[in-house]
Amino acid sequence: MEEGGALKSRLDALRHELKRCQMQGFIVPHADEYQGEWLPQCAERLAWLTGFTGSAGMAIVLEDKAALFVDGRYTIQAREEANGALFEFMGLGDGQPYEWITANLLTGATLGYDPNLQTMNQVKRLKAACHKAGASIKALNENPLDAVWSGRPPPPYSPVIPHDIAFAGETSARKRQKIAEILSKEKLDAAVLTAPESVAWLLNIRGADVPFTPLALAFAIIGANSEVTLFMDRRKLTEDIVRHLGESVTVESPETFAAALDGMGVKGLKTRIDPDGPSSWIYERLRSAGANIVPGADPCALPKACKNQQELDGVRNAHLRDGVALVRFLAWLSRQTPGSALSELSAAKQMEAFRAEGEHYQGPSFATISATGPNGAVVHYRVNEKNNRPLETGSLYLIDSGGQYLDGTTDVTRTVAIGEPLAEMRVNFTRALKGHIALAKARFPEGTTGSQLDVLARKALWDAGLDYNHGSGHGVGAYANVHEGPQRIAKTPNRVPLKPGMVLSNEPGYYKAGAYGLRIESLMAVTPLTAPQGGDKEMLGFETLTLAPIDIALVEKSLLSADEAVWLDAYHARVQKKLKPYVDDETFEWLELATHSIGWL
Amino acid sequence: MEEGGALKSRLDALRHELKRCQMQGFIVPHADEYQGEWLPQCAERLAWLTGFTGSAGMAIVLEDKAALFVDGRYTIQAREEANGALFEFMGLGDGQPYEWITANLLTGATLGYDPNLQTMNQVKRLKAACHKAGASIKALNENPLDAVWSGRPPPPYSPVIPHDIAFAGETSARKRQKIAEILSKEKLDAAVLTAPESVAWLLNIRGADVPFTPLALAFAIIGANSEVTLFMDRRKLTEDIVRHLGESVTVESPETFAAALDGMGVKGLKTRIDPDGPSSWIYERLRSAGANIVPGADPCALPKACKNQQELDGVRNAHLRDGVALVRFLAWLSRQTPGSALSELSAAKQMEAFRAEGEHYQGPSFATISATGPNGAVVHYRVNEKNNRPLETGSLYLIDSGGQYLDGTTDVTRTVAIGEPLAEMRVNFTRALKGHIALAKARFPEGTTGSQLDVLARKALWDAGLDYNHGSGHGVGAYANVHEGPQRIAKTPNRVPLKPGMVLSNEPGYYKAGAYGLRIESLMAVTPLTAPQGGDKEMLGFETLTLAPIDIALVEKSLLSADEAVWLDAYHARVQKKLKPYVDDETFEWLELATHSIGWL
Repeated sequence: MEEGGALKSRLDALRHELKRCQMQGFIVPHADEYQGEWLPQCAERLAWLTGFTGSAGMAIVLEDKAALFVDGRYTIQAREEANGALFEFMGLGDGQPYEWITANLLTGATLGYDPNLQTMNQVKRLKAACHKAGASIKALNENPLDAVWSGRPPPPYSPVIPHDIAFAGETSARKRQKIAEILSKEKLDAAVLTAPESVAWLLNIRGADVPFTPLALAFAIIGANSEVTLFMDRRKLTEDIVRHLGESVTVESPETFAAALDGMGVKGLKTRIDPDGPSSWIYERLRSAGANIVPGADPCALPKACKNQQELDGVRNAHLRDGVALVRFLAWLSRQTPGSALSELSAAKQMEAFRAEGEHYQGPSFATISATGPNGAVVHYRVNEKNNRPLETGSLYLIDSGGQYLDGTTDVTRTVAIGEPLAEMRVNFTRALKGHIALAKARFPEGTTGSQLDVLARKALWDAGLDYNHGSGHGVGAYANVHEGPQRIAKTPNRVPLKPGMVLSNEPGYYKAGAYGLRIESLMAVTPLTAPQGGDKEMLGFETLTLAPIDIALVEKSLLSADEAVWLDAYHARVQKKLKPYVDDETFEWLELATHSIGWL
Repeated sequence: MEEGGALKSRLDALRHELKRCQMQGFIVPHADEYQGEWLPQCAERLAWLTGFTGSAGMAIVLEDKAALFVDGRYTIQAREEANGALFEFMGLGDGQPYEWITANLLTGATLGYDPNLQTMNQVKRLKAACHKAGASIKALNENPLDAVWSGRPPPPYSPVIPHDIAFAGETSARKRQKIAEILSKEKLDAAVLTAPESVAWLLNIRGADVPFTPLALAFAIIGANSEVTLFMDRRKLTEDIVRHLGESVTVESPETFAAALDGMGVKGLKTRIDPDGPSSWIYERLRSAGANIVPGADPCALPKACKNQQELDGVRNAHLRDGVALVRFLAWLSRQTPGSALSELSAAKQMEAFRAEGEHYQGPSFATISATGPNGAVVHYRVNEKNNRPLETGSLYLIDSGGQYLDGTTDVTRTVAIGEPLAEMRVNFTRALKGHIALAKARFPEGTTGSQLDVLARKALWDAGLDYNHGSGHGVGAYANVHEGPQRIAKTPNRVPLKPGMVLSNEPGYYKAGAYGLRIESLMAVTPLTAPQGGDKEMLGFETLTLAPIDIALVEKSLLSADEAVWLDAYHARVQKKLKPYVDDETFEWLELATHSIGWL
């Protein structure tokens, strides 16, 4: 709250600017024009205005009141960081911002928004909420907050680096050809790529414009002739990279992107654009310029999700190194004295240190969740100096972390008993484990979606009247986004069938508010299986990629079926065998015990 | 094919009429203006034109060619009944009719359709297909086929009967109040009810206008004041029924329905209508009259699906009688000599005879599937004199049948080994049984949909590289439609959460083309469960309603888990106990053996 005075004057300045623009209100979402998960500093408008630094949220500023909307995981943090005298604190879920607009916007008022920061669907909902209040909505070409944000950081221009063909497994030329074929087949002239991860995949490039994800922020347009225009600041590109891009890729300044969209409209090009992802500005610009818009998924999304053999080999190698780091960490943890200097912060630091020793390591793939005791029940917990807890005997310790390696992205959660766990912890851990095993062992026919499989991960918990309030699995990129679409394993319907080469997490958990949390997360690759004897058809299944022991002190063997026990033993045998060549004797001694068969424990 | 000459002259007459209307083509779907599953005779246009009597299909007639589209289950029947010289035989799935239109309709041609027989979505797809061919589409106010159909049966006017409050459990006045509250809450003025089953539920009436389903064909409009206008031929109504309907229900002639929609438009009424169900004519009429259309589900669909306690009691009683009939049939079957006079036809007849002896029985709820040997692998098999097979030793016999009782609707499939089954049959039957048990035992939190549970029914088959090409469960009405929405257990996404009182089938199966088919189908009611010890929340589960033994000669016990074996034994113990008071000694003797615990067999 040191910034209290500064925050008040920022809000005042914004209101003054709104008055100048004749707006009675303005929306400040936590978003940028790429609609990505992570924002560059220059797009952290919500934090600048409110002080709140969480990864999701929204503020609405009216003439005489303002509200900050955050979801359940950020309720406490928002109150610590933002000023309750300036902002009313509200929930983000269940359409609460829209209800707040309807309740608070005056009849005849106009609510401004930055069309670069809102998707078409969001604009639709905003419009309906304003309509109900007898008010209207207006897209502002200039963001009034940017007008008063003095000292706003410049857009990032981290250097772009080539993504080595040894890791990518397929040349950019070949990928562009593939996408062009998709467009031609549907008689389309072009597609607008608004997701930087699609641009990165297509052109075999990486960057460092946002935290945790090796992306260079950029838009691109690909034509049915396979030629690409990349809209990117020239300063990010060395001559080597320009050569790497080749002659079929034209680099234009980001300022010319609008004119390029206009040009597509003038030519009446039949253009595919994803109706869900991009900001409404792009959509509207294309539409008003006269382009023949064909709504459709980003054509790179599916081929990017289906990793090729070389990418899968890279991902396997990255997981070997990641497994070594994890096992070294877990072995180290077993040697510490609980409750002393051992805390959530110090443990997370140690984990990151071990990981950093791995070849090709570039940094964490997301903010490590290092949580013990009741903090473990906070699903998106992030430790800091204030909430840091020591690891105490009788508690559970949950660590969810991952690395970006040049050859792959990892994401793994292990939960460890510190000292002797309660029987209830063991029982509930085992239920989550049964779900993890059911998903890992699943066989399914082509055409099956992640939504269809979700229940396998939950069944043992449901049988006991328990559940967890998050998805069972998300897609993961290859040295790219740790959260990647279009596939997903979740309760909510998803129409994308699982295909060979897709990488997904498998992460059932259980959280007892105020007491403990547990989760078991490994990454898996979708893989073809040959039809078993007597079977009618080839099926698909999963190969577990993550190599790290699951704490057998938390396994209640009597709850496992023989098949499940066999799976666990086989998994542990594989972990031991794979990691043995790479760990020191002390660590291996621990690993041997940790991967002991539960059959004769 | 006796009708060969007649069919040719019908097609000629239709073409002549199309010429007169200046249409270059016309579509004849298997549908009526209620978009119901079963049609009255006067709407069997496809059968009149083509000779094909299946329950799904479509013909498209152009100036010089015509095609009949049927799905896989009707490939053979279509060739037997229709004339290949007049109609090209085509598949119905994967948009084949639309592709055929694009390929065969000439540029500049106009394809006519009857808007009473096509939904909005179908019209949209037809329009797109014509557009691709450079042709156009036109809604015809008068159906040209009707113009040339001499001797067309009149619309049915079977007498309407009241649905007794003892079975309905809730007065029509109370139901109308409920629906009015739903409309008021959403600030709607009215809803148009285009599904006869919704009208039947709302007004507590039944009828006999279509086969297998006790419905009186009618449209209705309900206002937010809970008043209803019922559009129905007065001749169907006795004075008693008019009294039963009460003063808040106004009966108007079906001819005035169009004017009523126009009136709603003139008044600008905010009107809910389902975008998926009704014929496009109703939608277009409302829209062009100026009504404020709010797309939304039929407001009766969900309350109708959630049976009240009295309805559930009725459904349980109906299942008791249905179980008695089934057990008498199965006992009778066990006494027959295979391969003699025992055939699919004679067995089906015997089953229906036993069922007909039950109290409140009104008739079959659908056409019985009585299939043995390779016929069992034809999922929607319907026996006739031609394809009738004797029940032979070493084969499987599958019977899928159901009854309409005044207090409930049943639908049950049992598969029986005739003589000694092959080991493969037993193994695959047991896999389907494992799926059946997993669904029957499922516990799930509120908000769970049938789509989420579908995999439970398939898992054991998937594990063996097998699957079945139909849903795992459909909704079932209470003395109403044997196939009822909005809930469903299937691979395809369905967003309707399962709610207490919903009745669903549980019917995994396996089909080996050319060899055998097996299916185990029972009906279940969704029921609240109390949270188990240590559980966080109340869960939902299923109560199995169907009472009939599952053939233990087909169970390979080594494939069952202890829990599964316990379920089977407990189910059989319940079947035996419930049915004992109602069956004769000879039948009970068989029942005792058939429901023997597999624990010590």
